[in-house]
Amino acid sequence: MHQDDPVPPAPRGGPPPPYDAPVEPVADRRGAGARTAAFGWIDAAREQRRRAGLVRTLRPRPVESPLLDLASNDYLGLARHPEVTRGAAQAAHRWGAGATGSRLVSGSTELHARLEAELADFCGFEAALVLSSGYAANLAAVTALGGPGGLIVSDAGNHASLIDGCRLARARTVVVPHADPDAVRKTLDGHDGPALAVTDAVFSVDGDAAPLRSLADGCRAHGAALLVDDAHGLGVLGDGGRGTLHAAGLAGDADVVATATLSKSLGSQGGVVLGPARVIEHLVNTARTFIFDTGLAPAAAGGARTALRLLRREPERASRAREVADELHQRLTEAGLTVARPDAAVVSVRAPSPEQAVRWAADCREAGLLVGCFRPPSVPDGISRLRLTARADLTARQTREAVRTILRTAPGA
Amino acid sequence: MHQDDPVPPAPRGGPPPPYDAPVEPVADRRGAGARTAAFGWIDAAREQRRRAGLVRTLRPRPVESPLLDLASNDYLGLARHPEVTRGAAQAAHRWGAGATGSRLVSGSTELHARLEAELADFCGFEAALVLSSGYAANLAAVTALGGPGGLIVSDAGNHASLIDGCRLARARTVVVPHADPDAVRKTLDGHDGPALAVTDAVFSVDGDAAPLRSLADGCRAHGAALLVDDAHGLGVLGDGGRGTLHAAGLAGDADVVATATLSKSLGSQGGVVLGPARVIEHLVNTARTFIFDTGLAPAAAGGARTALRLLRREPERASRAREVADELHQRLTEAGLTVARPDAAVVSVRAPSPEQAVRWAADCREAGLLVGCFRPPSVPDGISRLRLTARADLTARQTREAVRTILRTAPGA
Repeated sequence: MHQDDPVPPAPRGGPPPPYDAPVEPVADRRGAGARTAAFGWIDAAREQRRRAGLVRTLRPRPVESPLLDLASNDYLGLARHPEVTRGAAQAAHRWGAGATGSRLVSGSTELHARLEAELADFCGFEAALVLSSGYAANLAAVTALGGPGGLIVSDAGNHASLIDGCRLARARTVVVPHADPDAVRKTLDGHDGPALAVTDAVFSVDGDAAPLRSLADGCRAHGAALLVDDAHGLGVLGDGGRGTLHAAGLAGDADVVATATLSKSLGSQGGVVLGPARVIEHLVNTARTFIFDTGLAPAAAGGARTALRLLRREPERASRAREVADELHQRLTEAGLTVARPDAAVVSVRAPSPEQAVRWAADCREAGLLVGCFRPPSVPDGISRLRLTARADLTARQTREAVRTILRTAPGA
Repeated sequence: MHQDDPVPPAPRGGPPPPYDAPVEPVADRRGAGARTAAFGWIDAAREQRRRAGLVRTLRPRPVESPLLDLASNDYLGLARHPEVTRGAAQAAHRWGAGATGSRLVSGSTELHARLEAELADFCGFEAALVLSSGYAANLAAVTALGGPGGLIVSDAGNHASLIDGCRLARARTVVVPHADPDAVRKTLDGHDGPALAVTDAVFSVDGDAAPLRSLADGCRAHGAALLVDDAHGLGVLGDGGRGTLHAAGLAGDADVVATATLSKSLGSQGGVVLGPARVIEHLVNTARTFIFDTGLAPAAAGGARTALRLLRREPERASRAREVADELHQRLTEAGLTVARPDAAVVSVRAPSPEQAVRWAADCREAGLLVGCFRPPSVPDGISRLRLTARADLTARQTREAVRTILRTAPGA
């Protein structure tokens, strides 16, 4: 059954995935079995996962998947939009299949520069820097902006990449309760020197938005900076999908930095840091995941540029994703399920137990519907959930069909 | 002049890039200037860089660069090979511009599975796992294989991504002198429990290969595992470019794991971990940069697959890259320069001082030749260098031209 769990655990500020496999005694360490023994402890870890029902398996999909997708982050349905794939293909033809080196050596093309200018302009920031993934962008931003003597205040629900950024940064990190601007304020009290509050804009598990205005006010009262990961907000929230920072009136402010991915609403690959030009210049000079990584592949840059152009032309895609989310929320709530009110395009449905959540997701899959499934230890509050993503290109019929399947397979239905 | 330095510092095991900017006093922290003050310390850091001559600037290149490229990592000249760019473009058309989600949710396609099988087969390993970058692959491998109670023994010359992996891992890390198997053995002595030696196969600054056989013997005597980053060896070393591990007869061994990039010899983007199936399965279940990242874009996977197929068909590309490196080494040495004997396709030329190295690289650029430039604090031995990469597709004329330019612009020439 556990094999059916299609979803990785989402870290919500707690400890990292357990790594507490007992060490297997290596009897013949110097003998014939030495080579096999070197990774012997892995088998113990595997057995532990199996017993805990936490084994995860890759399920490669064919070109045309028979499943209705309510699990991906392709919020605007652009990943396979012919115009976007053509943009990616043309960039590969024109600029090459790869960037050939670090952005600081041979890996910066005019294509990257144009994409960066367009992203900054669209989202309302002074400058932008594109990296090979959202993970790399978050590591870059947190480590470059959280230095020794500094303080990082990190929301307990933050994404793994922000948490890893805090771990790599030289600043002291204090983890504060989820969505708690008062706790951020109190933590900043008494700290003297550079400080940075770090938060997701829209949290992946419950789909709730961070209280950005309060956070920004609290930071400003202390002269602290605010770093916001808008991975799930770009393309969905704000005027025409300009993002959560834009919606909150914070985009472009001198003390605000945003990160986002090019792999969700923009249907491509990569990450971006948006902020004041001096911050971007600082990253170019100090961020290891920027400096020591190959530049983003031209096809990914070209795909993201085309998606951005398409979003400018069809801004209703952003509101449509939110409408689908609201509709899912409404229909499932009316049917008696406990569903968090979605702030963006992530819809989180409570399950009675981890086992039933996994069974539920598996039954959905069997019925042709792909949904996400979160359960402990990925959820700090211990509540298991189905995670649905509302796509702008879902038809009314598909949405109804998804709701029917979820209700039909619900535990106790 | 420093603006002309096209090359980022390469970490060689020492401390990370300095982050010791003095904290700027924030006079009006709660007043009107509070927003600007939040990142005030960045200006001090910038000024410090400027004074130290360490400012780095992006120089976006046009589609057709007028420069002769001896700085990229496109060792086989495949990034812009029409067959490879066509492979990338076709994959975008067929599979989409992006993978749409984590590999564990919606982001695994049959394209990824095929690429993984082909990479494992080509390099001689049981299994493979593809990630969005080489950086992500190294973070994944080191953190997943270096757990609490474990020991990581890391070469002082290792790449930034391996170093960051050690920092994120829960194991204790001991940094040993560069290319010193005895130091590795001594460090393993007395440790009981899982242990992992970590090394680059070919080091980026000097182009020297690690003593892999001695390292493997030392690890085996202690029941330790060996993790080797073959970013600069895949496509260049070993039979038909099968890599440094294959050349050393270590590929596929039960206690050996390799990582590599798809963005150097394979001209694309992405990273790969190669190893025993149980290790790969362990990464799928535990490696955060795999689990919490969007899957590699189809175009990058398609480009890399095509490059691999091309390399199988034209194995002479690998030996040709080595020949060009040898020729560069020979000609420059004969002319009186101090050049490290290249073990792969990286050719390192000594410069008399950091200032002269920067000037030299700038003069080369002015003369139409793009070369890398390493200097302190990026080089632990304090020796500044020009870094040349030998590309398999350089013509004899281009190689001679590059040598002429380097000699003509050499300090004191």
